Amino acid sequence: MEVMFRYNWMVREQWYQWCEEVAEAELLRRRTGGVGSILQTLFHVVDVEWSWVRVLQGKPDFQESFDGYSTLEKVRQLDREFRPEVESFVYAWNDSLESHPFHDPQPDGTVAVDTWGEVMRHMIAHQIHHMGQLSVWSREIGKKPVSANVIGKGLIPPNL
Amino acid sequence: MEVMFRYNWMVREQWYQWCEEVAEAELLRRRTGGVGSILQTLFHVVDVEWSWVRVLQGKPDFQESFDGYSTLEKVRQLDREFRPEVESFVYAWNDSLESHPFHDPQPDGTVAVDTWGEVMRHMIAHQIHHMGQLSVWSREIGKKPVSANVIGKGLIPPNL
Repeated sequence: MEVMFRYNWMVREQWYQWCEEVAEAELLRRRTGGVGSILQTLFHVVDVEWSWVRVLQGKPDFQESFDGYSTLEKVRQLDREFRPEVESFVYAWNDSLESHPFHDPQPDGTVAVDTWGEVMRHMIAHQIHHMGQLSVWSREIGKKPVSANVIGKGLIPPNL
Repeated sequence: MEVMFRYNWMVREQWYQWCEEVAEAELLRRRTGGVGSILQTLFHVVDVEWSWVRVLQGKPDFQESFDGYSTLEKVRQLDREFRPEVESFVYAWNDSLESHPFHDPQPDGTVAVDTWGEVMRHMIAHQIHHMGQLSVWSREIGKKPVSANVIGKGLIPPNL
């Protein structure tokens, strides 16, 4: 499970570096699709990852809006603050948690029963999906996007 | 491993259904980013998934261009043809294959050593990344994109 979290953290760091070379106005410009801007997308990904870890642990969620985090440095700082708790949770993962029920109250008053394994995979897919959106916006401003390759990052050592 | 392949196949089917309600000219229209059009993205995802399964097995790869597959029905038909071999490979996966070396010749003449576990995760992330691109293009044509949610698809039964 932890391989894809490490992938996401590497790719996220590369997007932060990508942002360093882009004017802040471009990072904040309203765009079509997703959550609406490049920087807000990164904020959203950091927020959602940590929030799910909190929800699974039955702890209070992150409820702040992007308004207070609308610079690259503030998003990076938030990521640094949240990361240790996410890492602890991810590195403590074991297969027995895969089908652990997650009770999710629905708007209609019923309670859906999903699983922790689904939530963890949702956290992973959530970032990848949003980075796909960034890749389109990146081309719109004439800049090469960060690679989405999983291969070549040394994530799993070969058994030689 | 197979959970995210099943997720991708479900989402891909939902994108095919989404395409049914969109004019073919829109599906083929040249767009910014990714591989350039909605239908070519779906073709590319089908192509890449199967090609990696072939490469890992040491079998000949798929080398045809999009030109011969530029309708929704042709892409779906290709997907139907390729799927059984991909499914067989995915469902036969076991943890002992994670760090199995994958020798990948590089343009400079060296040979990188990656792993089968990385390749499998690359196949998964590859589709999710491209579906993120489709979600932006979907909004550009004023249509709601297919949900990227992993939760709520019944992928892992809860242990009640």
